[in-house]
Amino acid sequence: MTDHPFSLPAIAYSDIEAAANRLSGTAHQTPVLTSTMVNDRTRSQVFFKCENFQRTGSFKFRGAFNALSLLSDEQRNRGVLAFSSGNHAQALALAGRILQIPVTIVMPDDAPAVKQAATRGYGADIIFYNRATQNREEVTQRIAAEQGSTLIPPFDYAPVIAGQGTAAQELIQEVGELDILLVCCGGGGLISGCAIAAHTLSPHCQVIGVEPKKADDATRSFYSRTLQTIENPTTIADGARTSSLGSLTFPLILHYVHDMVTVSETAIVRSMFFLWERMKLVVEPTGALAAAALLEGIISVPDARIGVIISGGNVDLKEASKLFSKTTSKTKRTPRLPLAQELS
Amino acid sequence: MTDHPFSLPAIAYSDIEAAANRLSGTAHQTPVLTSTMVNDRTRSQVFFKCENFQRTGSFKFRGAFNALSLLSDEQRNRGVLAFSSGNHAQALALAGRILQIPVTIVMPDDAPAVKQAATRGYGADIIFYNRATQNREEVTQRIAAEQGSTLIPPFDYAPVIAGQGTAAQELIQEVGELDILLVCCGGGGLISGCAIAAHTLSPHCQVIGVEPKKADDATRSFYSRTLQTIENPTTIADGARTSSLGSLTFPLILHYVHDMVTVSETAIVRSMFFLWERMKLVVEPTGALAAAALLEGIISVPDARIGVIISGGNVDLKEASKLFSKTTSKTKRTPRLPLAQELS
Repeated sequence: MTDHPFSLPAIAYSDIEAAANRLSGTAHQTPVLTSTMVNDRTRSQVFFKCENFQRTGSFKFRGAFNALSLLSDEQRNRGVLAFSSGNHAQALALAGRILQIPVTIVMPDDAPAVKQAATRGYGADIIFYNRATQNREEVTQRIAAEQGSTLIPPFDYAPVIAGQGTAAQELIQEVGELDILLVCCGGGGLISGCAIAAHTLSPHCQVIGVEPKKADDATRSFYSRTLQTIENPTTIADGARTSSLGSLTFPLILHYVHDMVTVSETAIVRSMFFLWERMKLVVEPTGALAAAALLEGIISVPDARIGVIISGGNVDLKEASKLFSKTTSKTKRTPRLPLAQELS
Repeated sequence: MTDHPFSLPAIAYSDIEAAANRLSGTAHQTPVLTSTMVNDRTRSQVFFKCENFQRTGSFKFRGAFNALSLLSDEQRNRGVLAFSSGNHAQALALAGRILQIPVTIVMPDDAPAVKQAATRGYGADIIFYNRATQNREEVTQRIAAEQGSTLIPPFDYAPVIAGQGTAAQELIQEVGELDILLVCCGGGGLISGCAIAAHTLSPHCQVIGVEPKKADDATRSFYSRTLQTIENPTTIADGARTSSLGSLTFPLILHYVHDMVTVSETAIVRSMFFLWERMKLVVEPTGALAAAALLEGIISVPDARIGVIISGGNVDLKEASKLFSKTTSKTKRTPRLPLAQELS
C-alpha cells in the first residue's frame, strides 16, 4: 500500500501510557472547554483541549519531559542539545530544570529577544550562530562533540511523539470517544502521537490534520504518499514552518491519520480572534489552526463529537493585536459540504 | 457590634446549594487553573477559578439565571427589566433566552456599540435613555408600569447573591478547603455569595475583598462600618464603578468578609497583562482585581492555599492592547508583610 520508503515506526499506545505515567504530577492536565456558541454554529458537540495552559504555554512540554525522563544517567550528566527558538526550546529548558539536566539551545543570533529571554528564564544555555556565515548542522556537530550531549529533536523522535500523544489520551479519557479529532500539523509530532492514542481509545474517530495553506507540505505528502518539502514558508503559524514531516512522523501520519486540510492566513487570524474574544483564550496562530478548520466550515460534521487541540498560547500580545487590527471577528456562517461528502 | 442600620439578610448556604441545582447543566462548571510560576513567586498554592469562561463571559450568568429561575409563571410572562450596559445585561439576556422570559435592558444611549450588540445578540430588547435629559429611575418606573415587568437588580437581590455564591462553592468543592479566598468587589454580590459559601465549606478561610483604589467605597464602608458612597469613579475596572454596596450586600460583607484591600490602576493593568501573557487568560480589568492583590504582594501568606476568583473576560481586545502598550509585565517581587501581620 505504501509508495514511500519508510517503514511504520514501532510506537504503540503503551508508549503513550508510559509517557502519561512519567508526566503525571509534573505536566498539567489541561482543561477541556466547550462553547455553546460553537456547538450551535457547528451543530456539533465540540471539545477544546487547551494546551495553551500547559506548562511553558504549549503541548511541547509533554514530549520534552518524556524524552528527558528516558535518558540514562550518563546522558543526563552530559546534558541535552536542541535547535529551536520556539516552544520546543522553552519546553526542553523547563524539563531540564525539573530533571536537573543541563540544556543547551542553539538559536540564530537574530532570534527575537523575547524568545531568548523565555528560554533563559527556564535556565537553559543559549548558543547563537550566524545564519549567514555558519551552518547550523556544523555548529551542532561541534557542540555535541565538545559536550557529548544528546540531541533532542523537536518532533521526529519516538519519546517526543509518545509524549505529545498524551494530549489526545487525556482528552478522550475525560470526554469519551470522539467522531473527529482535529490537530494542527507542523513536523507532525503532535498529530502522530494523538492519532496513535485515538486509534486505541476511540477506534472510530477520524483524525484530521490542519496546516496553513502557505505551508501545505504535509497535506501534499499525505495525498501524494511521497514526502514533500517546503522552503521557508511565510505563514504566521510559526509552529508549522517546518520544511517537511520526518522519517517517523510521515509513515505514522499515512497510517493513522484520516485526512489533511489547509486553512488560509486570514482564517487563522479570524479563528484566533474568535478564540480570544469569545472563548477568552490566548492562543498563538499555530494553536488556532485546528479550530480554524472547524470555525471556517472546512470541516463540518453535524451531530458529531469533535475534539480540537489548541496547541499553544505563546504569542507576543502586541504582535497579536497588530494581527487583529487587520481583521474582524466575522466568521463564515455557511459551512462547506459535510466531511463525509468531501472525503467520498 | 454593628453601627449600621441594616440587619443581616437571611441568605444561607442552603440558598447557594439550591442555586447550584438550578444552574446544573446550564451554567459552565468553570475550570480551576494553577500556575507553577505564581506558586513559586507567592510561595503559596494558588487556585484560579476562571469565571471568564462562564457563559456570557462572566460570573454574572450564575446570579441572573438563578434569579429568573425563581420567578412565578406570571412574572415570567410579563418579563424582566434591568439597567446595565455591562455583564449583568448580557447575563440576563441569555438567561431570559434560555428560560423563554422576555428581557428588557435600559441603557444610556451612549453605551458602547459593542455592548449593545452583545446584549441584542442574546435576544434582549434595549431601551435607551438620554443621560442629559432623562432620569434613569423615571424611565424604569414608566417601563415597569407599562410592561408589569420585574426589575432584576445587578447585585442587591438575594437570588442574585445566592447564584454568585456558587462560584466559590464549586471552587472549594473541587480543590478542598482554602486559607484565603480573594474576590473582587463592586456592588458586593459576588463576594457576599462567595463568603457565605466559604463560611460553610471552609470555615477557617479568610475571605478578602479587592477593590480599585479609585473606587474604594466598600473598603471605607468596611472599616468605618458605615455605608460610604463614591461618585462616578474613573477606574478602568468598570465592574467596580458602582456607587456603593447595597442594603443586602453591606451587612453580609460586614458579617462574612474578613478584610478589604485596594489596588492601584497600574497594578490592575500589570496583573491583567500577567494573566494574559503568562497564564493565557483573556481577563477584563475587574476580573484581574483579586489576582492583583496577590501578584502585587498586597496579600502575601506563604504556605497558604489561596483561591482567586477571576470574575470575567469581557473586554474589547483593542482597548486592552492600548492598556498594555502603556505598561510592562514586570510585577513587584518583594511582597509586603504577611497578611497575619497586616491584620494584627
